[in-house]
Amino acid sequence: MKIDVALTPGTFHPVKGDGKSVIVVDVLRASTTIITALANGGEKIIPFATVEDVRESAKAYPRDRVLLCGERQSVRIPGFDLGNSPREYDDSVVQGRILLFTSTNGSQMLIKATGAAEVNIAGFVNIGSVVERLIQKKRDCVIACAGHEGGFSLEDGVCAGMIVSEARQGRTGGSIRLSDEALAAAILYEHFADDLQGMIKKSFWGEYLTRIGLGDDLPLCASVNSNDLVPVLQNGVLMKKKLDLNYG
Amino acid sequence: MKIDVALTPGTFHPVKGDGKSVIVVDVLRASTTIITALANGGEKIIPFATVEDVRESAKAYPRDRVLLCGERQSVRIPGFDLGNSPREYDDSVVQGRILLFTSTNGSQMLIKATGAAEVNIAGFVNIGSVVERLIQKKRDCVIACAGHEGGFSLEDGVCAGMIVSEARQGRTGGSIRLSDEALAAAILYEHFADDLQGMIKKSFWGEYLTRIGLGDDLPLCASVNSNDLVPVLQNGVLMKKKLDLNYG
Repeated sequence: MKIDVALTPGTFHPVKGDGKSVIVVDVLRASTTIITALANGGEKIIPFATVEDVRESAKAYPRDRVLLCGERQSVRIPGFDLGNSPREYDDSVVQGRILLFTSTNGSQMLIKATGAAEVNIAGFVNIGSVVERLIQKKRDCVIACAGHEGGFSLEDGVCAGMIVSEARQGRTGGSIRLSDEALAAAILYEHFADDLQGMIKKSFWGEYLTRIGLGDDLPLCASVNSNDLVPVLQNGVLMKKKLDLNYG
Repeated sequence: MKIDVALTPGTFHPVKGDGKSVIVVDVLRASTTIITALANGGEKIIPFATVEDVRESAKAYPRDRVLLCGERQSVRIPGFDLGNSPREYDDSVVQGRILLFTSTNGSQMLIKATGAAEVNIAGFVNIGSVVERLIQKKRDCVIACAGHEGGFSLEDGVCAGMIVSEARQGRTGGSIRLSDEALAAAILYEHFADDLQGMIKKSFWGEYLTRIGLGDDLPLCASVNSNDLVPVLQNGVLMKKKLDLNYG
């Protein structure tokens, strides 16, 4: 079994039909928001590349069936119901609704990953379940960091590295081979393992979110294993699935 | 003063006129080969993007004035005088010659960097002089890892991180700000600091070179401070310059 990591979108080149699974990581904040939304009763989430795609798609549903969700420049898109803060995705808001979602980095990676043998979403919040599923499925895998605007984000690299590191520890029988990038990510995680909250706060993106008044999202996004959902993208739709090793 | 690192070519976006210097890192092997060739008396090195460009350019010189140098798939290009192994660039071979050079990764980065306020080449072999120059010049800087075929190479990331780490230690007066990528690189270096030879040997590219019979290049490429040259790219030409903090 081999684990690769794409530390930036530019090194993520999924190949349809190669049998690999893809784990998309966008800690600040799409991963965390999507996992939270599904955990709080959102029926499904459909990721879109553009704001216009969301608006167009919404026309196919009764208005109260859907929520228009997402951000540009980290803030809620004009006319949308919700932005990209996990705090907005309360059960009273999302329960039973279909969420049409676009974000600058995370949704783009999900769309790029479409066609892989399996596509999951991971953040610190669901990392234990993601690792368990990875080990059980025994598929070669690429962990794709969303970063921001094509660049590297420390918190995504560290989260990818935590998946690598925990998979190696948890794996029984057979070794896990790592690419250079996967090894680098694991080293980054091990460096910050004792202070993930501090790492997120001092990261470029963490500092930026704090500056624009969204700092309260950071502790939520750094909250390891606060959730056990592993969202799976199937036919372009992210579904709510509790960890169940028999599905898929 | 700010240091950024592009861990892969995809995150290297030089902006002409922004006043930043660029340090290109291609440990295995273009950096090491170029530094060795200049140290051994090569008059100058002209990097080219393609094999055809080298052949065309050679026509402008008497045949014995130039050497056609470089690799594709790590081996010498048919009809060329030299490949990309530092062992080939002996003083008896390169003394007083003009080297027309193309490699899969390193030369492409040099060409991409053209137009920056200053472009240097670094490897482990000349890292002390590179760091000294960086600290003295006080310019914002991007360390651009060549990687391989667009992807990440561990040895380049570690070398970039060594520059960052030593610049922070050597800097007196004023702090050095780091991007997320620069911080990540420094952490990678600090992890491998005690065994750079072992790191290179176990890297993807190091293992590949060993497999194809070029393993003897690795100790040369990992030999820290075996040289004090800092090659500078000026008007598309790499010149031999000993560390002289007054030049440029």
